[in-house]
Amino acid sequence: MKLTKEQKQEIRDQQNQENKTKRVTAPELEKILYEAIPILDHGFVRVVDYMGDDSSIVQSARVSYGKGTKKVSTDEGLIKYLMRHWHSTPFEMCEIKYHVKLPIFIARQWIRHRTANVNEYSARYSILDKEFYLPSKEHLAAQSQSNRQGRGEVLEGDQAKKVLNLLKQDAEQTYENYETMLNERYDGSVIDEKNVGLARELARMNLTLNTYTQWYWKTDLLNLMNFLRLRADHHAQYEIRTYADAMLDTLKKWVPITYEAFMDYRVGGTEVSAKGKILIQKLIKGEKITLEKSGLSKREWNELMLAFNLKDNLI
Amino acid sequence: MKLTKEQKQEIRDQQNQENKTKRVTAPELEKILYEAIPILDHGFVRVVDYMGDDSSIVQSARVSYGKGTKKVSTDEGLIKYLMRHWHSTPFEMCEIKYHVKLPIFIARQWIRHRTANVNEYSARYSILDKEFYLPSKEHLAAQSQSNRQGRGEVLEGDQAKKVLNLLKQDAEQTYENYETMLNERYDGSVIDEKNVGLARELARMNLTLNTYTQWYWKTDLLNLMNFLRLRADHHAQYEIRTYADAMLDTLKKWVPITYEAFMDYRVGGTEVSAKGKILIQKLIKGEKITLEKSGLSKREWNELMLAFNLKDNLI
Amino acid sequence: MKLTKEQKQEIRDQQNQENKTKRVTAPELEKILYEAIPILDHGFVRVVDYMGDDSSIVQSARVSYGKGTKKVSTDEGLIKYLMRHWHSTPFEMCEIKYHVKLPIFIARQWIRHRTANVNEYSARYSILDKEFYLPSKEHLAAQSQSNRQGRGEVLEGDQAKKVLNLLKQDAEQTYENYETMLNERYDGSVIDEKNVGLARELARMNLTLNTYTQWYWKTDLLNLMNFLRLRADHHAQYEIRTYADAMLDTLKKWVPITYEAFMDYRVGGTEVSAKGKILIQKLIKGEKITLEKSGLSKREWNELMLAFNLKDNLI
Amino acid sequence: MKLTKEQKQEIRDQQNQENKTKRVTAPELEKILYEAIPILDHGFVRVVDYMGDDSSIVQSARVSYGKGTKKVSTDEGLIKYLMRHWHSTPFEMCEIKYHVKLPIFIARQWIRHRTANVNEYSARYSILDKEFYLPSKEHLAAQSQSNRQGRGEVLEGDQAKKVLNLLKQDAEQTYENYETMLNERYDGSVIDEKNVGLARELARMNLTLNTYTQWYWKTDLLNLMNFLRLRADHHAQYEIRTYADAMLDTLKKWVPITYEAFMDYRVGGTEVSAKGKILIQKLIKGEKITLEKSGLSKREWNELMLAFNLKDNLI
Repeated sequence: MKLTKEQKQEIRDQQNQENKTKRVTAPELEKILYEAIPILDHGFVRVVDYMGDDSSIVQSARVSYGKGTKKVSTDEGLIKYLMRHWHSTPFEMCEIKYHVKLPIFIARQWIRHRTANVNEYSARYSILDKEFYLPSKEHLAAQSQSNRQGRGEVLEGDQAKKVLNLLKQDAEQTYENYETMLNERYDGSVIDEKNVGLARELARMNLTLNTYTQWYWKTDLLNLMNFLRLRADHHAQYEIRTYADAMLDTLKKWVPITYEAFMDYRVGGTEVSAKGKILIQKLIKGEKITLEKSGLSKREWNELMLAFNLKDNLI
Repeated sequence: MKLTKEQKQEIRDQQNQENKTKRVTAPELEKILYEAIPILDHGFVRVVDYMGDDSSIVQSARVSYGKGTKKVSTDEGLIKYLMRHWHSTPFEMCEIKYHVKLPIFIARQWIRHRTANVNEYSARYSILDKEFYLPSKEHLAAQSQSNRQGRGEVLEGDQAKKVLNLLKQDAEQTYENYETMLNERYDGSVIDEKNVGLARELARMNLTLNTYTQWYWKTDLLNLMNFLRLRADHHAQYEIRTYADAMLDTLKKWVPITYEAFMDYRVGGTEVSAKGKILIQKLIKGEKITLEKSGLSKREWNELMLAFNLKDNLI
Repeated sequence: MKLTKEQKQEIRDQQNQENKTKRVTAPELEKILYEAIPILDHGFVRVVDYMGDDSSIVQSARVSYGKGTKKVSTDEGLIKYLMRHWHSTPFEMCEIKYHVKLPIFIARQWIRHRTANVNEYSARYSILDKEFYLPSKEHLAAQSQSNRQGRGEVLEGDQAKKVLNLLKQDAEQTYENYETMLNERYDGSVIDEKNVGLARELARMNLTLNTYTQWYWKTDLLNLMNFLRLRADHHAQYEIRTYADAMLDTLKKWVPITYEAFMDYRVGGTEVSAKGKILIQKLIKGEKITLEKSGLSKREWNELMLAFNLKDNLI
Repeated sequence: MKLTKEQKQEIRDQQNQENKTKRVTAPELEKILYEAIPILDHGFVRVVDYMGDDSSIVQSARVSYGKGTKKVSTDEGLIKYLMRHWHSTPFEMCEIKYHVKLPIFIARQWIRHRTANVNEYSARYSILDKEFYLPSKEHLAAQSQSNRQGRGEVLEGDQAKKVLNLLKQDAEQTYENYETMLNERYDGSVIDEKNVGLARELARMNLTLNTYTQWYWKTDLLNLMNFLRLRADHHAQYEIRTYADAMLDTLKKWVPITYEAFMDYRVGGTEVSAKGKILIQKLIKGEKITLEKSGLSKREWNELMLAFNLKDNLI
């Protein structure tokens, strides 16, 4: 990640603000507000605004529950209860806004989360930065043989080099031709004064999908957790997972109690089907179980055994 | 509106907070933060949190527009442009949260706005306050004869008295029977120690629709304006309009530039259909227009003439 | 439930339609299309339109998965896989529309599901039917002592009678005064020709929350399942559960494969937290577990044991 | 647009279905159901399912309005009234589903409409088709000088040729390297049996943004009109406008009455601000108007004059 001098200064200016407010604040989050956390080779994620903290969840839940809870349950107990029982609306009462720089093919996964507000940098209006994502060697993985939607072993030696070269060359070449068609360089300088440039909304189509874009992305705490649950999961593509992991850290700084409950009940938890429950009951009673009688597919069976770390039962 | 001592103290405690933050603040809104603005006889609306200000709209729009706008347009010009051309996402980048006390029949209109977050006081869990809405005399209107969905003249003398008496007696009686069924008074005291009470989730069905409820309601600036555009309109029922009017004031304190643009382009503006445009053009050219040749219904014709204050053309 | 002659005829007319279409159809659902299924004392639910069937889920998922799946997995396998792994968008590709008659206090729970389309009968515009919900004796339950949000034992003898009388009298009286204020009976007849009536939008506030309303409610299959998961659950209030149960039947007729997967993975399944997983593993290995070392609250512990029917471990 | 034999057969098979249904049908839309309407060089749009017709809007609006409207207003009058007064929910009661093939840079504009259901062809799972968009000569436009977000004159002779060559070469080369990295051709044949291929989820990043993707896209009638209003507008980028135009045709076949009202009130209509209304009133009265006293910006002034075709007043 490289920021221009001006961008760095703009960030510092925001960080040097010291405003007074009667609103609740999240002190740990304030410490990293506006800071660009580097992700991948040129990306970043930074928190640019937020609203509410753990107490806001309790506050709104208590309106919906009325007088009475105050004595019975501490904030932590209530938040854990709400999480465990899939209450949703109290977690919607907190809001957070990120500025994210990310490769376009990752932006296309991300945007599938619809309950969020987005303003993306417009390549109809402006020229995109000359930055594209190239995987580091340890993330240059082969297609998985067992899982059509996953990665296998890391590519070795020459093949890895060749792939990286192709990615680099194609990105550079298509970007250069993007500039040629625009008749303008990424820094705004005109290439040939006698010529006009192709419309920006057209020229952009020549860029490769690893070109970086950026956006403002705002969502409430519930939908942030929905996002993180899917995207910080090991099934998620590595590249989006790195963003989700960094955002998990910001979650912890923002709403630490909610973070703990989220890790326990969602991220670290598992679902068990009706058929799976019967199997687990039998295992606890020491009864024999077989795939045939379970009603489960082999894949489902193995997913269940792995969820409870019962490797001896894998088939 | 009457608040208990405790409630007043809780509001004062929140108002006395003085936190430091690097976030942007809206100074005029801070002044009335947490304050319960009285609405109708027992209702209120109060801002309990917010995120962003006018500059947040510009900031996110400029990401989506990229470098360049900074020089060309002032914030005000950009916000007006965005409003005029129905840009939506930049206005979603600000968020506000209200605590509202309101009659149930109004809550039922309000909740139809789906893009918002809500936590309502639970009458399954708690006992509702002994408060119900009774219209003041000047709002006790007869059914409109011309508009099936509107109000006509204010009721006079005896009939007004009779109506108010019926509303008051029925609300008091049904509330008292609510307590009887619960075997508990609204203050928590038990009526008959030897008896059990009906489940709260059932007893509540005996209450009338003018009973007050309360909720936390949070939405983004775009959807707040959508709400206000419909509910501060003169077609809206008076009772919800009083809430919308008070919220318009909070909008002005929060995002004054956006407020001006909203009043000019949305609240004070009008839509003209394709057929209506032709009529207006003819009027400007001094040509004769007739209902028959206009393709408009009589009602539509009159709506158009009123929109431009052309009362001589009413039919 | 009583329908007027005209209403019955309108339903029959719709049922007698026999249109040709190239769209997929759900034959079992067609059999009950438009039919009013009675719920509670005066309510009903009826399917009035639908789009798609089980095959539509597979069809859209296969676009998103591309060529290849066709050979590997049968429709059933794919639908089960999608359900197990919380895929959401393929289930959004089916849509259903209900016409529902229901008490207002239940409508207020229902409307909290925001991802749906709703048109409700307008009491600003029209007079509400003279129908209100009175619980049958076996559902007249006392407030639960252990669960503030639940029901306990059924009320007995005299108290039950008294409660039913109060509910009935108050509903009848407030409805009668509603008519008086309107100066119009529910059948449209004017009470006193010399008088004007109170505006409908005001008079309705005198009605009790057990008055019946009705609406068209349309949602996609994913959000229908979200609704049913919460509202057909035993924690849901009995009155809304009866609607959800009837709708579960329509789900089965509409998308039978999805229904089976839904019952297995959602309705009959359970979630286990990270801490809960460790306990289950220990139980399977025959190790000793204690509440103290588990990190669970007592309540959480008991919920886990009940989920796996381990009643001996209840504390 | 080229379809494989198999794809053509699949479409024919769906078109040859003849199912019976009690649901309402839209006969004109049935005629083109499943048909792939060609768009751009390789794209298409086809209606694959729908629910409801014009009568469904009236039906649900009449529930929300109750008895009474039946006599007063015809379906057409009611639909026009609803459209004119921005009623939204009745139009949500119809639903339509499209299968669309489109360049990725257009898909990225399209997906910004969030109130829709989408399943996209997965390039994590499958290999994308070897098809990319190349503009035809008459659409190869230069960047507009006056509007940073628009197109100017069409490029001439040599420059046009050069741009087309660059676009073609880069797309072909990056696609070929995509295959090389995958170690697999688009037809599934392996390139080098001794090698493994790069993971699909990575290799795709080498493709240019004019590569075609495809998806199932489903939305309700209200949100379809919101989409068309913005995307069939002359401010929209030409490439997405061609899709919107074709979809306008399907709208007309589906709900002809709604289509007429939509064209009159939305597409052909205009908004006038509070300040603009005063200007129009003055023009009608024959009074003099000046930019200075109007409170409008020059740009706003000209937009207003153009809306009413008052070209003599342009500044």
